[in-house]
Amino acid sequence: MAERPEPSAREAYRAFRAIPTRWMDNDVYGHMNNVVHYSFFDTAVNGWLIDKRLLDIHESSEVGLVVETGCRYFSEIAFPDTVAAGLRVARIGTSSVRYEVGLFRNDETLAAAEGFFVHVYVDRKTRRPQPIAPALRAALEEIAS
Amino acid sequence: MAERPEPSAREAYRAFRAIPTRWMDNDVYGHMNNVVHYSFFDTAVNGWLIDKRLLDIHESSEVGLVVETGCRYFSEIAFPDTVAAGLRVARIGTSSVRYEVGLFRNDETLAAAEGFFVHVYVDRKTRRPQPIAPALRAALEEIAS
Amino acid sequence: MAERPEPSAREAYRAFRAIPTRWMDNDVYGHMNNVVHYSFFDTAVNGWLIDKRLLDIHESSEVGLVVETGCRYFSEIAFPDTVAAGLRVARIGTSSVRYEVGLFRNDETLAAAEGFFVHVYVDRKTRRPQPIAPALRAALEEIAS
Amino acid sequence: MAERPEPSAREAYRAFRAIPTRWMDNDVYGHMNNVVHYSFFDTAVNGWLIDKRLLDIHESSEVGLVVETGCRYFSEIAFPDTVAAGLRVARIGTSSVRYEVGLFRNDETLAAAEGFFVHVYVDRKTRRPQPIAPALRAALEEIAS
Repeated sequence: MAERPEPSAREAYRAFRAIPTRWMDNDVYGHMNNVVHYSFFDTAVNGWLIDKRLLDIHESSEVGLVVETGCRYFSEIAFPDTVAAGLRVARIGTSSVRYEVGLFRNDETLAAAEGFFVHVYVDRKTRRPQPIAPALRAALEEIAS
Repeated sequence: MAERPEPSAREAYRAFRAIPTRWMDNDVYGHMNNVVHYSFFDTAVNGWLIDKRLLDIHESSEVGLVVETGCRYFSEIAFPDTVAAGLRVARIGTSSVRYEVGLFRNDETLAAAEGFFVHVYVDRKTRRPQPIAPALRAALEEIAS
Repeated sequence: MAERPEPSAREAYRAFRAIPTRWMDNDVYGHMNNVVHYSFFDTAVNGWLIDKRLLDIHESSEVGLVVETGCRYFSEIAFPDTVAAGLRVARIGTSSVRYEVGLFRNDETLAAAEGFFVHVYVDRKTRRPQPIAPALRAALEEIAS
Repeated sequence: MAERPEPSAREAYRAFRAIPTRWMDNDVYGHMNNVVHYSFFDTAVNGWLIDKRLLDIHESSEVGLVVETGCRYFSEIAFPDTVAAGLRVARIGTSSVRYEVGLFRNDETLAAAEGFFVHVYVDRKTRRPQPIAPALRAALEEIAS
């Protein structure tokens, strides 16, 4: 409700993943419901981690807990659009990382929505914060903004 | 619970659509929840209709009501798999059509799940059955099994 | 597409669970999308099992794999309706059980949709069928139709 | 990533809605996926508007577009928990309103998650901002924090 931010271009992001919309993503207004954007953030972040072999859902001793997320919506997306989800890392702390994700509709050059996603790494059992592992840190730095 | 049917091969289907899985599709057992398969059927059918310009969500005077659906599950699918959803038309009635959909995991040749989806065309306002329009009927016949 | 079955009354079911609809359940046509019904079946069955202490998601050595599901849709449900999901057991085999679920909209006496859900019990690791445990079998018999 | 905020108590919210979790809300880690929280915000806000007869999905000439959302996660929620979603209005502008929502797990007194949801009212056809209608403004003021 302060001055309205402007959408970024694709150049502001470092790694992309194509995510086609589904019929159910549309709500009663005929566009993608605001909740679905977060499932794209989730998919962009975890998909990148899995592709880089940095996340083993079943076996890793640390898990990334999501502690904060947010999204600004600039323009609508609707089925059957395909979204290009751009990913970058905005901040790397001792145990936490802030990812930022831009959602680009089909061939559009400006983001339809932009959001963030903060992971804190914790021990799977004790749930206490753990330092980010060196291999993960190195990969995060490669897509730092 | 009768004799177990066998999964079909890709040759049994006539039109394909790639549907990547999303992180949220996985349930607590680490594979795609049984509900999500139906969102793939929905997407395969409506996506095909939209691509063929046979469905106008906002303006068409007839809408396809879903009256019955079903699915048999043969093997698991999990994020980050991409599913090829194969579509065919099994029966065309006066007002209704039975679609069948096979879900193929990544490069697998046998379906991980197969289901069906019955649409009855009704008038958008009165909700009374309407004959399937000639253009739609012609397109359905092209992917009849 | 054969003769159209009629919806059952609440008396046909044995255990009920209230499931309020959510905004996102509505699709572009303004009623609950056909996929969402299956998440209600899933919730009715697993909720009953957890309430009866017959399912431990993390620790049980057997898990119920879903091998077949289906649904007939009679009339629409829409947010903000609350659904009463009625559950009964239609068949108990050596390793498998067929649940049937009726979804009743608000105070309506006839089902808006009715479906089924077949679980086969398998060993969590080997995924081979296991006999239904005696305590589970006894509970299933209490809600047999 | 600044100093970690503390969860609020129920007294910080003005209107409550019970939202039971569903089986599918749980992700592979066995707790409610971070995306689902937003569907609870959506449901809390739109449910309140519908209950107050301030939203007619199909007929109203203005619609509330979601322009920004966010959530902080404090502790986990898991099926079969029931969530009490508390709602308050934090700011009312000319055309926009900022709702804040707290999600309370079962009988817990501190929020498991807290978020916000900003609606801008626009004309359904032109999508240009419209002043908030007087009846809506009066209702919003009743749940202002």
